[in-house]
Amino acid sequence: MSLSLGYPATSDDYRTLARARLPRFLFDFLDGGATDEQTMAVNVADWGRVRLRQRVLVNVDNIDTGTVLAGQSCRMPVVLAPVGLAGMMARRGEVQAVRAANGAGVPFVLSTVGICPLQEVQAAASEPFWFQLYMIRDRALIQSLLAEAWAAGCRTLVFTVDLPLPGMRHRDTRNGLSSGGLRSAALKASQLLARPGWVWDVALRGTPLTFGNLSEAVPGARNPDAFKAWVESQFDPTVTWADIEWLRSQWPGRLMLKGILDVEDARAAVQVGAEGIVVSNHGGRQLDGVASTASRLPAIAAAVGAQTTVLVDGGIRSGVDVFRALALGAQGVMIGRPWAWALAGAGQQGVSHMLAGWQQELRLAMTLTGVTRIADIGIAQLDSL
Amino acid sequence: MSLSLGYPATSDDYRTLARARLPRFLFDFLDGGATDEQTMAVNVADWGRVRLRQRVLVNVDNIDTGTVLAGQSCRMPVVLAPVGLAGMMARRGEVQAVRAANGAGVPFVLSTVGICPLQEVQAAASEPFWFQLYMIRDRALIQSLLAEAWAAGCRTLVFTVDLPLPGMRHRDTRNGLSSGGLRSAALKASQLLARPGWVWDVALRGTPLTFGNLSEAVPGARNPDAFKAWVESQFDPTVTWADIEWLRSQWPGRLMLKGILDVEDARAAVQVGAEGIVVSNHGGRQLDGVASTASRLPAIAAAVGAQTTVLVDGGIRSGVDVFRALALGAQGVMIGRPWAWALAGAGQQGVSHMLAGWQQELRLAMTLTGVTRIADIGIAQLDSL
Amino acid sequence: MSLSLGYPATSDDYRTLARARLPRFLFDFLDGGATDEQTMAVNVADWGRVRLRQRVLVNVDNIDTGTVLAGQSCRMPVVLAPVGLAGMMARRGEVQAVRAANGAGVPFVLSTVGICPLQEVQAAASEPFWFQLYMIRDRALIQSLLAEAWAAGCRTLVFTVDLPLPGMRHRDTRNGLSSGGLRSAALKASQLLARPGWVWDVALRGTPLTFGNLSEAVPGARNPDAFKAWVESQFDPTVTWADIEWLRSQWPGRLMLKGILDVEDARAAVQVGAEGIVVSNHGGRQLDGVASTASRLPAIAAAVGAQTTVLVDGGIRSGVDVFRALALGAQGVMIGRPWAWALAGAGQQGVSHMLAGWQQELRLAMTLTGVTRIADIGIAQLDSL
Amino acid sequence: MSLSLGYPATSDDYRTLARARLPRFLFDFLDGGATDEQTMAVNVADWGRVRLRQRVLVNVDNIDTGTVLAGQSCRMPVVLAPVGLAGMMARRGEVQAVRAANGAGVPFVLSTVGICPLQEVQAAASEPFWFQLYMIRDRALIQSLLAEAWAAGCRTLVFTVDLPLPGMRHRDTRNGLSSGGLRSAALKASQLLARPGWVWDVALRGTPLTFGNLSEAVPGARNPDAFKAWVESQFDPTVTWADIEWLRSQWPGRLMLKGILDVEDARAAVQVGAEGIVVSNHGGRQLDGVASTASRLPAIAAAVGAQTTVLVDGGIRSGVDVFRALALGAQGVMIGRPWAWALAGAGQQGVSHMLAGWQQELRLAMTLTGVTRIADIGIAQLDSL
Ligand SMILES: Cc1cc2nc3c(=O)[nH]c(=O)nc-3n(C[C@H](O)[C@H](O)[C@H](O)COP(=O)(O)O)c2cc1C
Ligand SMILES: Cc1cc2nc3c(=O)[nH]c(=O)nc-3n(C[C@H](O)[C@H](O)[C@H](O)COP(=O)(O)O)c2cc1C
Ligand SMILES: Cc1cc2nc3c(=O)[nH]c(=O)nc-3n(C[C@H](O)[C@H](O)[C@H](O)COP(=O)(O)O)c2cc1C
Ligand SMILES: Cc1cc2nc3c(=O)[nH]c(=O)nc-3n(C[C@H](O)[C@H](O)[C@H](O)COP(=O)(O)O)c2cc1C
Repeated sequence: MSLSLGYPATSDDYRTLARARLPRFLFDFLDGGATDEQTMAVNVADWGRVRLRQRVLVNVDNIDTGTVLAGQSCRMPVVLAPVGLAGMMARRGEVQAVRAANGAGVPFVLSTVGICPLQEVQAAASEPFWFQLYMIRDRALIQSLLAEAWAAGCRTLVFTVDLPLPGMRHRDTRNGLSSGGLRSAALKASQLLARPGWVWDVALRGTPLTFGNLSEAVPGARNPDAFKAWVESQFDPTVTWADIEWLRSQWPGRLMLKGILDVEDARAAVQVGAEGIVVSNHGGRQLDGVASTASRLPAIAAAVGAQTTVLVDGGIRSGVDVFRALALGAQGVMIGRPWAWALAGAGQQGVSHMLAGWQQELRLAMTLTGVTRIADIGIAQLDSL
Repeated sequence: MSLSLGYPATSDDYRTLARARLPRFLFDFLDGGATDEQTMAVNVADWGRVRLRQRVLVNVDNIDTGTVLAGQSCRMPVVLAPVGLAGMMARRGEVQAVRAANGAGVPFVLSTVGICPLQEVQAAASEPFWFQLYMIRDRALIQSLLAEAWAAGCRTLVFTVDLPLPGMRHRDTRNGLSSGGLRSAALKASQLLARPGWVWDVALRGTPLTFGNLSEAVPGARNPDAFKAWVESQFDPTVTWADIEWLRSQWPGRLMLKGILDVEDARAAVQVGAEGIVVSNHGGRQLDGVASTASRLPAIAAAVGAQTTVLVDGGIRSGVDVFRALALGAQGVMIGRPWAWALAGAGQQGVSHMLAGWQQELRLAMTLTGVTRIADIGIAQLDSL
Repeated sequence: MSLSLGYPATSDDYRTLARARLPRFLFDFLDGGATDEQTMAVNVADWGRVRLRQRVLVNVDNIDTGTVLAGQSCRMPVVLAPVGLAGMMARRGEVQAVRAANGAGVPFVLSTVGICPLQEVQAAASEPFWFQLYMIRDRALIQSLLAEAWAAGCRTLVFTVDLPLPGMRHRDTRNGLSSGGLRSAALKASQLLARPGWVWDVALRGTPLTFGNLSEAVPGARNPDAFKAWVESQFDPTVTWADIEWLRSQWPGRLMLKGILDVEDARAAVQVGAEGIVVSNHGGRQLDGVASTASRLPAIAAAVGAQTTVLVDGGIRSGVDVFRALALGAQGVMIGRPWAWALAGAGQQGVSHMLAGWQQELRLAMTLTGVTRIADIGIAQLDSL
Repeated sequence: MSLSLGYPATSDDYRTLARARLPRFLFDFLDGGATDEQTMAVNVADWGRVRLRQRVLVNVDNIDTGTVLAGQSCRMPVVLAPVGLAGMMARRGEVQAVRAANGAGVPFVLSTVGICPLQEVQAAASEPFWFQLYMIRDRALIQSLLAEAWAAGCRTLVFTVDLPLPGMRHRDTRNGLSSGGLRSAALKASQLLARPGWVWDVALRGTPLTFGNLSEAVPGARNPDAFKAWVESQFDPTVTWADIEWLRSQWPGRLMLKGILDVEDARAAVQVGAEGIVVSNHGGRQLDGVASTASRLPAIAAAVGAQTTVLVDGGIRSGVDVFRALALGAQGVMIGRPWAWALAGAGQQGVSHMLAGWQQELRLAMTLTGVTRIADIGIAQLDSL
């Protein structure tokens, strides 16, 4: 599809726009997954298998897509997932995104490795946003980041547990992201030359392109590569549930554990006192070959849904998919690539437009399944296959 | 396939012709479905899973494809479904279509939002046709439309219940149908310029291109867009079974409820006194993600087939598919896009030719499964998978 | 794949060659199936689902692919199926084919509507061949054809029962085969002009291109179209098992009923005294939507395999597929398109080469499943899925 | 994907490079499989169906991918499978490969029909390598080969049992490998001319391109074709388990039987005293239509895994696939095409780089399933589907 004159309608249309605007290595970083991208693909496909149950002649005049997530009112049960380097997708990307999120009435999560620092996002935001953290080796740094987040008004901490090591993302390797030397530089340069608009708009006018929240921790770093090197040195595979207990004691706000894909781990999360979990495989970017989140959600929701908030992410691409996730037991969803594609393709306005479309689609799904409240969506709104 | 010199044989061939003749936005409006078009796709695919049971050496000399639908004799159990804006697919499209339907001995259903008004269709028709209605907010208008339809000789009312809100058809968004402004106008103009034949034949010589049945109700409207806006303002999501009871009392003829996809709703339709139902998901144009009609038909036919007429539509693309629907319990089928493609591609003659082919295909299916009467077609003519 | 310099290896390679040599309408006639070609496709695909069971370290030194079919010794259990108009695929096509069959030690079946008459084939053949007949209205003609076949040395009659009416082959319609007039003639001429080699070799030097066995019965006919018209007028949908009894009494040789796809019909065939059946759906050319022969074979073989010879055809494309059919209960297979593609693509030599390859492939399959005799192939040589 | 400037990341990327460097007939020989390549395809696809079970917050700091295979310490449970003619993929290919294997700490298996002789490989290797043998008619030659292998330091013999006859590899036929004459020579020449780099690097500077281990046995042979002819004359379909007993008595080292796909044959292998088996269908190059190795592995491992070493090969394409094989019961895997593609595409360095990537991927899989030792990987690390 050429969108030259036409209008983007779906997250996939924004993906097409993003591909046209971003330098190849950046698009691939955003778009790709681990190994053979099998999990990334089933993440999307498995939502498509969930069949909605059409009902007619139910009075559906006062449909309300609003809900409460982590104690926060939302106009729909969608959260913008933490996306590292989002600030490279568009000029000061996290600022544009948080504004779109606020406009749509949905929470925004700032990544540890976002470009814009907590304070910059806070200044732009009209609502409290959430902060995401990885376990890193330097525990003092964790404590200071938690303090900064709290000071920036964050009350919900999304703690990501599925990244003890970085995933094998072969597209990045192909683009030379992990190689040095002349050839790699030439490759990168050729990709940048092919996208002068991005270079002008983001690389030149969107500086600094550093990891905003870590710039003090990594004083010498001048570019994302240097930060990435530092971050990778900080991955901590020794983390266990005991460390979560410690974290729990450090953070006065709400704690959500992101990256749970197993019933036993979900139970442990409840045990340790997490207010919520995000059923996630990191969008298929970590261990390829694991199950789709759609296939794991029902069992996890059945096991812990009564005790904790269950969100889910991975492969959700429309308002219909949001409905499917709710029907399978989630209280809300996170979306990663969709908002980043929209941001890269059309900035804040793109994100706003996409979210408005999804809300309308969710409303339509409620209308034609005959429910008027988010809380009423459940397995009864699905057809068996 | 290029059909430049060749002959169209299937509804898909007519689709190819239609794509070549219609401006893009019109073809997409006709061809597309909601959201990711998953339901539209399974509608077609699921008929393909139904396996016919070949029998040989049965005397099949006097095969009769004729039947009675809604009290009307038909030469085959096929009905031309209501298709809004059909009059834009070819010059005075509904007139051409009703003539083809009459020639083939099958019922034609005029859409509320057809281009040709009831009187124009009546003048062209040699047989009574059916009228389709949506529930609209202005109940007085409903009453006057019912009166007009009755006056035009319609004795069967097809009341569509799966459109409390318009579906999310992303192709229309991409073509700017819901956007205003210069860019949208430029896009539309460029698509029109690419199809001068259509502009000359339909846009210039086929006027007025207004919603014929609504022109009195929407006096100021000069073009389809204005009508569409009015129609959308009239969608009524408060309708319930109680309104159907009211409708039932207003209409002296036969009432069929179109858009039933659930056994419980089918039972309610019988309860409320409907003479028939159309198992339908609106050709996948309303809520994407709902089941195919082929997959839902057997249970619904088992539940209410003895008490009411059960028709089905969605994805039926050949005489073999017609046979499959009958074998799964329907008494007849409606077809939407196929006749509109044939109309757009080759006018009245196209529709006639396509219907003749389907009848021959149905006859062949009866021949090779060893049945001679429509009423004898059932589950015994299918092979288990 | 361009085969310009390369060598054909599979029946699909010969198909590629045939497409390059035949005028489009002839290739499509040979290659196509009924309606949406679903049955044609599953015919091929379902053999691919049958998993062979590899065994090792069995002494497989004296493998013998030979068998006896209908009382005739064959070097492998493969029969060239009746293919109408085969004589248009290559110059005097049936003559070339019967020679290839004799060379490979497999039976050849001459179609009622072959180009070369019985006598011409007899003159070329070094072994008795089989004759195929349709039930036609003119029973006296049947009797005289039976007499001629007997006189030409045929001792096995293949009587085709799945053609009470011709199938809906849309490719033929697209090519104008059933249309008259200037446009159809222009289309045909353009296709002929694109294949001057075929025109010179077959159309000019391969005359007469009439239905050899019917030329006396249809005296005025000058071209295949005229014959086709006559044949279609002769289709007889009133035929029942009683007619088969009559036929049985008329034919002193072996009788095989071709076109059985149902267990009950197979039982009736035994009842009526047929020495064999061919499990067949006419290569998916008759009623689209019926099951693949691979899926129906096991039940039919279980029901009547002990009392009658069970052959199968449809979608068999390699020596491995031959093995699969035997393992599922057939005593032998017929192949249609494969030999006609090879004939069209490379003449007698093409058919010979293809058959030699299949025999080697069958031998290899026996080797690696550890059986040395055709009669030993059975379900034990398959892996459950 | 054009890799002109980019970096290869996966075995498939190396395949792309190999295709660009090798003459067509050689690439096809390496890349292809038997008949319709169905088994080759399911070999790959079926690993993709195995779902890993993601676990989080397990201490996975001291992950060790090392293991012991056939008494030899390996840094990961991967073996380079015997690949005939590997020395034609790159200059003195087996020498480059064994060096890469040693560098990665994994065993290398030299094929009977390798280009480099045992002594040349031994001279290059820093670790003992394994030797692979086919049963050939000339038993005295077997004895002398065993003696030479022992002298070259080989202590593990991989005896291949699934090659009583060569498979039907149609790509080779298409490239004229089994045809003689001018046309075949022209085809080969045209393919060589298209790859001057290979001709210079391998054909001219990599001589002699003979079967190194057989040059004394086939004294007159001057080129691979002549050797191939000799080898084919030596295939011995009379071999049975009794011959394996004889072999067992001749070979003082470890014996692994390669080409077992059936539980009964696996039991017989244990019976005859083999120290290990390789569950294999020869990469889909022998009998097409047999099951994937992934689908057969669990039953075989359950039957004999406690008594013998079970390796598996076929379709393994990443470190994730290695993990899957271990989880289904194998103690290690062999890989064939992947290392040969890497060798053809980028020589020794390519093989080293690919192996390093796989080890990292295996480590990541262990990390995110929460196991730290190879021996701990089992069915508990999989999600049911
Ligand atoms: C480019 C990119 C960067 C991401 N960065 C982070 C991150 O910094 N922290 C995190 O917890 N998850 C991160 N994720 C994962 C997302 O939060 C989310 O789990 C995932 O994108 C959901 O799948 P989806 O993209 O299919 O919606 C990232 C995902 C992408 C695509
Ligand atoms: C372009 C178009 C316009 C339609 N307009 C109407 C309509 O005005 N009223 C209605 O009840 N259904 C309408 N439908 C739905 C059809 O009546 C029918 O349910 C559907 O097309 C059946 O699916 P099929 O197109 O796959 O045959 C429309 C369908 C199409 C494709
Ligand atoms: C071009 C063509 C002509 C055929 N003509 C006849 C025929 O005259 N009589 C008959 O019994 N079957 C006829 N058949 C059917 C074949 O005998 C056979 O059943 C079928 O081709 C088997 O399927 P296959 O082509 O996939 O091998 C014909 C098939 C083809 C493709
Ligand atoms: C080009 C090629 C040559 C091979 N030669 C031999 C051989 O000489 N001996 C042997 O036992 N297996 C041979 N094999 C089979 C491999 O050892 C191994 O079983 C197979 O390649 C595994 O499948 P994969 O290629 O999908 O990894 C060969 C495979 C290929 C692709």
